[in-house]
Amino acid sequence: MALWQKIEYEQASPAVRAVFDDIRATRSSDYINDVWKVLANDPGLLERCWSRVKTVMSAGALDPLTKELIYVAVSIANSCEYCVGTHSASARAKGMTDAQFGELLAVVGLASEMNRIVTGAQVELDERYR
Amino acid sequence: MALWQKIEYEQASPAVRAVFDDIRATRSSDYINDVWKVLANDPGLLERCWSRVKTVMSAGALDPLTKELIYVAVSIANSCEYCVGTHSASARAKGMTDAQFGELLAVVGLASEMNRIVTGAQVELDERYR
Amino acid sequence: MALWQKIEYEQASPAVRAVFDDIRATRSSDYINDVWKVLANDPGLLERCWSRVKTVMSAGALDPLTKELIYVAVSIANSCEYCVGTHSASARAKGMTDAQFGELLAVVGLASEMNRIVTGAQVELDERYR
Amino acid sequence: MALWQKIEYEQASPAVRAVFDDIRATRSSDYINDVWKVLANDPGLLERCWSRVKTVMSAGALDPLTKELIYVAVSIANSCEYCVGTHSASARAKGMTDAQFGELLAVVGLASEMNRIVTGAQVELDERYR
Amino acid sequence: MALWQKIEYEQASPAVRAVFDDIRATRSSDYINDVWKVLANDPGLLERCWSRVKTVMSAGALDPLTKELIYVAVSIANSCEYCVGTHSASARAKGMTDAQFGELLAVVGLASEMNRIVTGAQVELDERYR
Amino acid sequence: MALWQKIEYEQASPAVRAVFDDIRATRSSDYINDVWKVLANDPGLLERCWSRVKTVMSAGALDPLTKELIYVAVSIANSCEYCVGTHSASARAKGMTDAQFGELLAVVGLASEMNRIVTGAQVELDERYR
Repeated sequence: MALWQKIEYEQASPAVRAVFDDIRATRSSDYINDVWKVLANDPGLLERCWSRVKTVMSAGALDPLTKELIYVAVSIANSCEYCVGTHSASARAKGMTDAQFGELLAVVGLASEMNRIVTGAQVELDERYR
Repeated sequence: MALWQKIEYEQASPAVRAVFDDIRATRSSDYINDVWKVLANDPGLLERCWSRVKTVMSAGALDPLTKELIYVAVSIANSCEYCVGTHSASARAKGMTDAQFGELLAVVGLASEMNRIVTGAQVELDERYR
Repeated sequence: MALWQKIEYEQASPAVRAVFDDIRATRSSDYINDVWKVLANDPGLLERCWSRVKTVMSAGALDPLTKELIYVAVSIANSCEYCVGTHSASARAKGMTDAQFGELLAVVGLASEMNRIVTGAQVELDERYR
Repeated sequence: MALWQKIEYEQASPAVRAVFDDIRATRSSDYINDVWKVLANDPGLLERCWSRVKTVMSAGALDPLTKELIYVAVSIANSCEYCVGTHSASARAKGMTDAQFGELLAVVGLASEMNRIVTGAQVELDERYR
Repeated sequence: MALWQKIEYEQASPAVRAVFDDIRATRSSDYINDVWKVLANDPGLLERCWSRVKTVMSAGALDPLTKELIYVAVSIANSCEYCVGTHSASARAKGMTDAQFGELLAVVGLASEMNRIVTGAQVELDERYR
Repeated sequence: MALWQKIEYEQASPAVRAVFDDIRATRSSDYINDVWKVLANDPGLLERCWSRVKTVMSAGALDPLTKELIYVAVSIANSCEYCVGTHSASARAKGMTDAQFGELLAVVGLASEMNRIVTGAQVELDERYR
C-alpha cells in the first residue's frame, strides 16, 4: 500500500481545500486529478507544486499548447506514466490533433535515438558552439 | 581516443559526400556539424540518421521551431550535452527568443520535478484516464 | 508472461533456501519480498544481490534510515516503481515520518528540476570546483 | 557558444543583484556559483530557482546534510556533472566525511543496480505493498 | 483512456494492412504485437518504425540474438516495461537460455552501478582514451 | 576540485596495492584505469567494485565481447561518458570491429527511440506477455 492515500475534499483541511478550490476555478472543472489528492498529505508541498504548475504552464512567451507538448515530451523521457497519461489528455483538451501527437512522438523518438548515438560515438561539441 | 575520428569532406567516400552535400543544400550553409563527420565512419548509419532528421524535423502538423524546442527538451532530459548545444543553437537560428528559452527551461524543470514527485508518491493513474 | 516466475521456499533448492533463511533472520520477519523469489531463478545472482544489500544497507558511517532515503531517492530518479514501493515501506518501518517523506519528495523534485535547468543552460563547472 | 553567458554582479540589474545579495547573505560567502550568474539571463527564473533552493534545502524534518546527500544522489542518477560537483562540495562543507561519501556512492550504486535488475526481471509489486 | 486505441486488421486502412502483412510474413506468425496496432493510428509513423526494426534487428555484423540482448539491456536502462516484456520474449524465442538471461541482468546491473559510482566520484577520462 | 583525487600505486596502502596487482595480473597490462585510482580513496568500495567487474565480465553463458557490448549499451543509456570511453576501448581490444560498433549504435538508438514512442503512446503489455 502506498504510504500516502488520496484525501478527498470532504476530509481535507482548509489549506488543502483552498488549493482544490483554486484548481477547480483555474481549470473551470470540478474534477481534481488524483495527484493533487495524494500530495494533499503534505499541504505545503501541494501548495508549492500547484502554484508553480499554474504559473509556469500559463501563456507567456510560449503558448499553453506548446508548453504541454514540451511537458509530455519530458515526461516520456523521464518514464512517468502518470504524467504522460494526464498531460497528453491536457494537450488534447488544448487542441492537440492526432497528427500533432504523431509528430510529437516522432520528434521525441528521433531525439532519443540521436542523443544515444551521439553519446555512444563520443562526439565532442564543435568548436563553434563552445 | 574515441574509436571514431572525424572524416572531412575531402577524405570522404562518394556515399558520404552525397550526404554532406544534402546537409549543405538543406541547411543553406557550408558548415557540417561534427556529429555527421563522426557518423561518416558508418556511411549507412550516417545516411539513415540524416534522412530521418531531415524528414522528421521539417514543417508538418507542428512547425519547425516547436519541433526544435521539443528536441532540446528531450536532449536535456536524456543528458546529451552535444545535442543540447547544437539544437539550442538551431532553435535560436529559427527564432527562439531569450524569453522563450527561459520558459522552455522552466517547463522542462517543472515537468522533471513533477515526474519525480508523482513517481515517489506512487500516484496511480486516475480511473478516467485509463 | 514474465520469463521468470516466483519460486516459493517449498520448491527452492538448498542454496536458495539458505538465502531465504538469512533474509528472514536478518529482517526478523517470515515475509520474503517477491524480488527475491523471482531472482531465485538464478541462485548465484540471488546470493550476490542479497549479500550486497545486507552489507551496504546496514549501519556504517551513515545510519540505516539515511541509507533508505538515499535508496528511495535513486529509485525514483531511475523510475523503478517496485523499488520505490518496497523501499519507501522499509524507510517507514525504520521510522520515516510523513513530514520526512514530504521533504524527501521535495528535495528529489528540486534536484531533478535544477539538474535539468543546469544542463539546459549549459553551465560549466566553476573553476574553483575543478 | 552557450546561448547564455554569465552575468557578473557589476553588470546585473537591481532584481538580479537582490538575488545575488541574498545568496551571499544566506551562505555567508561572497562567492556566487556560476549557475546563478547564468540563470541571471532570466531574472524571474533565477529568483524562483534560488528561493526554492533556499527553502527546500534548509533544516526541517530532515537536516541539511541529509538533504545534500539526497541531492547529490539524485544528481548522480540524473547525470548532471555540474550538480554533482557543486553539491558534493556543499555536502563536504556541511560535514560529510570521506567514509560517508564512500557509503553514499555505495548506496547509489546498489540502488541503481537493483533498480535495473528488478525492471529486467519484471518483478511485480507484492500484493502487500499495493 | 490513452489517446490512441488499438486498430485491428479488419478496421485498418490498406497502408496499415500492408505493414501488418509484412510483420506477419517476416515473423512467420499471425500475431501482431499491440504496439503496432496502437501506432497504426499514424500510418506513416507505423511504417517508419517497423521498417527500421526490420532492418536494424536482422543479422549483420552482429547476430540477431546479440542484438536482442542489447535491445533488452537498453530498454531496462530506459525503464520501458512494455519493451522489456516483449523483447525478452523475443530473445527467448531466439534461443536465450535462463543462464544467459541471468548474466544479462548481472551485466546490466553492474554497468548501472559503475556508471553511477564513476559519475559520483567525478572521474575524468584517462588521458590515453581522449 | 573533485572530492577524491587519484591515488597512485606508490602512495597506496597494502590493501589497495593488492587490488591494483590483481587488476594488472587479470588484464596482463601494467596500466591501471583512473577509475580504480580514484576509488582507492575507499579501499573497501574499490575491492568490492573490482571483484564484481572481474567476476561478472568474464566468460560464462555469454562471451566476454557480448558482455562488453551490453556494458557499453547500458553506459550510453545512462549517459556515463567515462564508461562509454573506457568500455568501448575494451570492446575494441576484445575484437569489436567498426561494423559491429556501428550496429551496436544502431540498436541502442533504435531501442531508445522505440522505448520512448511506446511510453508516449501508452501501449499496455499484450495479454499474452503478462
